[in-house]
Amino acid sequence: MGNSTLTNTTDRVEVKVDLAERSYPIHIGSPILNDNKLLNSLLAPHIHGTQVMIVSNVTVAPLYLKYVEDALTSYHTESVILPDGEQYKNIESWNSIFDALLNARFDRKCTLIALGGGVVGDITGFAAASYQRGVNFIQIPTTLLAQVDSSVGGKTGVNHPLGKNMIGAFHQPECVIADTQTLNSLDDRQLSAGVAEVIKYGLIRDVPFFEWLEQNIDSLLQRDPAALSYAIQRSCENKAEVVAADELEAGQRALLNSGHTFGHAIEAGMGYGEWLHGEAIATGMVMAVDLSQSLGWISSVDVMRLRNLIKRSNLPEQGPAELSSDDYLQRMAVDKKSEAGKIRLILQKSIGDAVLSTAFSEQQLRDTITANSSTAD
Amino acid sequence: MGNSTLTNTTDRVEVKVDLAERSYPIHIGSPILNDNKLLNSLLAPHIHGTQVMIVSNVTVAPLYLKYVEDALTSYHTESVILPDGEQYKNIESWNSIFDALLNARFDRKCTLIALGGGVVGDITGFAAASYQRGVNFIQIPTTLLAQVDSSVGGKTGVNHPLGKNMIGAFHQPECVIADTQTLNSLDDRQLSAGVAEVIKYGLIRDVPFFEWLEQNIDSLLQRDPAALSYAIQRSCENKAEVVAADELEAGQRALLNSGHTFGHAIEAGMGYGEWLHGEAIATGMVMAVDLSQSLGWISSVDVMRLRNLIKRSNLPEQGPAELSSDDYLQRMAVDKKSEAGKIRLILQKSIGDAVLSTAFSEQQLRDTITANSSTAD
Repeated sequence: MGNSTLTNTTDRVEVKVDLAERSYPIHIGSPILNDNKLLNSLLAPHIHGTQVMIVSNVTVAPLYLKYVEDALTSYHTESVILPDGEQYKNIESWNSIFDALLNARFDRKCTLIALGGGVVGDITGFAAASYQRGVNFIQIPTTLLAQVDSSVGGKTGVNHPLGKNMIGAFHQPECVIADTQTLNSLDDRQLSAGVAEVIKYGLIRDVPFFEWLEQNIDSLLQRDPAALSYAIQRSCENKAEVVAADELEAGQRALLNSGHTFGHAIEAGMGYGEWLHGEAIATGMVMAVDLSQSLGWISSVDVMRLRNLIKRSNLPEQGPAELSSDDYLQRMAVDKKSEAGKIRLILQKSIGDAVLSTAFSEQQLRDTITANSSTAD
Repeated sequence: MGNSTLTNTTDRVEVKVDLAERSYPIHIGSPILNDNKLLNSLLAPHIHGTQVMIVSNVTVAPLYLKYVEDALTSYHTESVILPDGEQYKNIESWNSIFDALLNARFDRKCTLIALGGGVVGDITGFAAASYQRGVNFIQIPTTLLAQVDSSVGGKTGVNHPLGKNMIGAFHQPECVIADTQTLNSLDDRQLSAGVAEVIKYGLIRDVPFFEWLEQNIDSLLQRDPAALSYAIQRSCENKAEVVAADELEAGQRALLNSGHTFGHAIEAGMGYGEWLHGEAIATGMVMAVDLSQSLGWISSVDVMRLRNLIKRSNLPEQGPAELSSDDYLQRMAVDKKSEAGKIRLILQKSIGDAVLSTAFSEQQLRDTITANSSTAD
């Protein structure tokens, strides 16, 4: 594929994100974390000073922190353990990283390592972007969602009570290490949430991958190592291509937000942490294709294919009964893709062909939301 | 001068900061703010959307906010008024800008305008760097310190209780507008604080400017318009040259921090807002040349020339009695120029010739601090 290269080793593949002097490798495979020597060899080239701050959370740290520390015994390592959950992706958590960095007197040559899911990665990346106006960081994603999406591409940030990811920076990691073994400790709900982002790549730009998912979704959910590894690799290749072409989201990178405008409204409206991000965007993609169909764009067959894949992945097809279309519209107006209050959505011409569009009326949008929401008992 | 160009108009000069596609003009002169049409013509090319958020403080807003609003009647303008003082250069003030932006539903094409001194400029710039991962901003500095230093060069950020400017970003403004008339509303103490940064340029890299200051310091302190305008222009030219050569402070840009490592220790040690930034770095420069002299570098004549200029500017030559050398050393170890806990300082070979150095012992540093501090009564 155009902007990514592949190196096959026994149990690992490497996908490269091509951003000139800010290019970096994504190492995918297993075992990595519990192989001290290998992990050290992958990390060491990207640590420029002697000081390493590992940021993790209360769920992940007991499982994997020791592996990272053991691989870095020749460095001065410290750690920050955050609470677990999207509701903690805020300025307070971010600021607690600065407390740790300054108390340990870490300087501008220090390196931050994000060890955890998307929340840990986004907060840590933004802390790295902001500490002393920018230090290096490395991503070690431990959830499927983070491995296939949030750890790649340099989008970092925290939530504001009025909107998700409203405060942040573009700050690329020095490398990404995705050990598929870490997915064995994920519960089924978290795994499914990650699958939503995997489906997204098929939906917006990769028909063969969508077809592969239709055939292999059961293996993926049963955590077949080969299926997981392939899904992560293919997702990262898709993301790497898009990011290489449009790092700062001037154009096509916005397509990666398929389902996200609806999804963010659900997440914020229900209170962060109530719905998982992947669950919310799964429902968001269903709403997006429903709206696309009502515009006469995507075929009913394609809509059913997406709905089936979402259903088979144990992801919600319907929005929560608690939110009205007003609740959605109010939240959607502050989406980052909005311009002068006008909502812009990623819609579908067909599976594999997405467009950023404003070609819908407010009533059509409201009808879609209502038609795809649970009704209160 | 190398990287800056000059356009003389009747009462204005333009200095250009040369950063390829991020180049921008600094307009210096008067009247600008109270000339609606002129102000509009200078601002409009740099406002890309329709939404403009003006950030100011309780001291400056009553004086000048209306001028900026009147020049931008064709835009949707909103404003945030922060409290006044270095002690408010913190995450809370910064976050209050996001509250305003999100409540007004401002999108990624909005523009932030910083109207005020260095604190307002630094906070606003960092908010612009972080809002939706980066929006445009314009600097309208209203203090001498901001006009000659902090509004130029893209360093933005806020303080952490454990260190000054520890959280921030490099984010260049779209343009800078320095109306020298705004300096008439400064009190004498604030004016002198700005002069400290002006003296700095002479000390570190511009002997003729240092000599000009020795001859014209009284006119400058009496707010002679021509003297002010020349001092600002020459300061901005010096800063523009340094920033163009080293935007991200990989090398020579660090020299602009002359006196700042000592100064930051004084500011943080006394509590932000107690000593003005310019006062603290004036004392810091005295300490830096004293240490340089004790290393056998700068001559006693040059040391006396700096001390005289500081004294004639009504700036403090001595550090506060409240701080011990331990207090300094503890603060100085977390300075951004430090590496692995080793303090690095801008020292002087002579007036006009500065170097970043670690060529001093801890005892020499302590002796310098003690010798240049007031003794408690």
